[in-house]
Amino acid sequence: MRIAEGLIPEGAIVTSHRVRVGYVDTDRAQVVHHGTYLRYLEAARVEYLRERGVDYKRFETDRMLALPVVEANVRYKLPALFDDELEIKTWLAVANRAKARFDSVILRGGELLTLAEITLACIRWPEGKICSMPDYVIALAKPA
Amino acid sequence: MRIAEGLIPEGAIVTSHRVRVGYVDTDRAQVVHHGTYLRYLEAARVEYLRERGVDYKRFETDRMLALPVVEANVRYKLPALFDDELEIKTWLAVANRAKARFDSVILRGGELLTLAEITLACIRWPEGKICSMPDYVIALAKPA
Amino acid sequence: MRIAEGLIPEGAIVTSHRVRVGYVDTDRAQVVHHGTYLRYLEAARVEYLRERGVDYKRFETDRMLALPVVEANVRYKLPALFDDELEIKTWLAVANRAKARFDSVILRGGELLTLAEITLACIRWPEGKICSMPDYVIALAKPA
Amino acid sequence: MRIAEGLIPEGAIVTSHRVRVGYVDTDRAQVVHHGTYLRYLEAARVEYLRERGVDYKRFETDRMLALPVVEANVRYKLPALFDDELEIKTWLAVANRAKARFDSVILRGGELLTLAEITLACIRWPEGKICSMPDYVIALAKPA
Repeated sequence: MRIAEGLIPEGAIVTSHRVRVGYVDTDRAQVVHHGTYLRYLEAARVEYLRERGVDYKRFETDRMLALPVVEANVRYKLPALFDDELEIKTWLAVANRAKARFDSVILRGGELLTLAEITLACIRWPEGKICSMPDYVIALAKPA
Repeated sequence: MRIAEGLIPEGAIVTSHRVRVGYVDTDRAQVVHHGTYLRYLEAARVEYLRERGVDYKRFETDRMLALPVVEANVRYKLPALFDDELEIKTWLAVANRAKARFDSVILRGGELLTLAEITLACIRWPEGKICSMPDYVIALAKPA
Repeated sequence: MRIAEGLIPEGAIVTSHRVRVGYVDTDRAQVVHHGTYLRYLEAARVEYLRERGVDYKRFETDRMLALPVVEANVRYKLPALFDDELEIKTWLAVANRAKARFDSVILRGGELLTLAEITLACIRWPEGKICSMPDYVIALAKPA
Repeated sequence: MRIAEGLIPEGAIVTSHRVRVGYVDTDRAQVVHHGTYLRYLEAARVEYLRERGVDYKRFETDRMLALPVVEANVRYKLPALFDDELEIKTWLAVANRAKARFDSVILRGGELLTLAEITLACIRWPEGKICSMPDYVIALAKPA
């Protein structure tokens, strides 16, 4: 993990997404299962894109492109619990022709629970061939 | 639920599928989450079909047909626990032009944990239009 | 399924819960997987209880009671799709000493997608012994 | 990710775990969802421990210890598909008082699909206090 301890870079455009922890999200250790966070992070990325003018569903169906996850790095610092209200702060940390990396921190109140870096490639949909990230996605990483 | 308490009908052709309960399958009540069983049951249906000569993946990709779930009825009698070895016994209880109903019992050792009736329709893939169940699927419900 | 085609009984106190369909909620048929709906329904029941004054987490941790699912009946009429905004309308259809049955309809706009009846028993937490449903839960089923 | 491209270190004791990809494991891109692999990897770690004499369930219930995931790093190179038979090769790459890191490669036939490094800490169960990794877990990392 390259991001510092939850430090959001200066100038980053951050989307805040809120989720309520469900019963099914937990496991027998009575905390949120480590895999569940990937669902929270994915929803947060879709909302990030929507807020910045990219409807991800139409990205696939109209533009015939998709953004599959090629790398996921998650660091779990404190467990989330059933019925917690979590905030996922997400920003586009890196974007170039080859990839887009979304970084996130997951918070409960002011408390930092989880850090994540999720890297996406761009492919032609539905054939799956790697292609260049569109300029308007790359542009999202640049502070206005 | 129309099936009696786990009673497998005489003459039914039964497929036995085994699963090991994973950590992620459980919830904070330290038992298998009620939704997890649908995954076990789905895998058991795919194995039932494979054993009887129907490769479900090719059913979709070659025959251009699919069998979506239109009704799920599950009765939970005893909880399954992490690391349990479960046996899912599945048979095709009803099959006609309109639907196929797979019944299952889930056992741990000799103990009956769960009963399920899952009803599937047949659609054209990938458009989703309802169509008639193929004869060779209907025929699977008939004892040899 | 005993509920009519999505007809909410007169006088029922209904909670409306909204979810956005995630990418992970779908399967290779490009619709929401039938098991995913159990997660939506579970979240809707927790919100139903919260709106009526029962914090389900404290129900477990303070009252030392839990409400496991003993029967799930779901009828899938139309598929939900990625990024759909769904509304889950939930009411307590039956409640007595032995069980509580929550009925739900899942809608997209005015369109009825799914019907469900989920029956819960009451157990002592965390031992798991069946006990009588508390009076204040039974009382929730009665129109004011 | 510190592991080279799927290269298993010389002398590593490797456990092979096989899974069949389920329908529910896929998403609307018609490939296995990136979150699903965490379930496969978790099952593989439990089998690794069982093969080396550590029953993970009893580790929790008898020894009153647990091994929560504190970091997950996964690199997705090629997608797995519905009904694929996957092999997860897992070894204990690092183990000391503070942590145990399990590395895995996921293969389909001879083809490398996924690389993962999952790091676990040791806590007292069920209170959740960090404690020292037991010597017999650390010893597993050493070639005989």
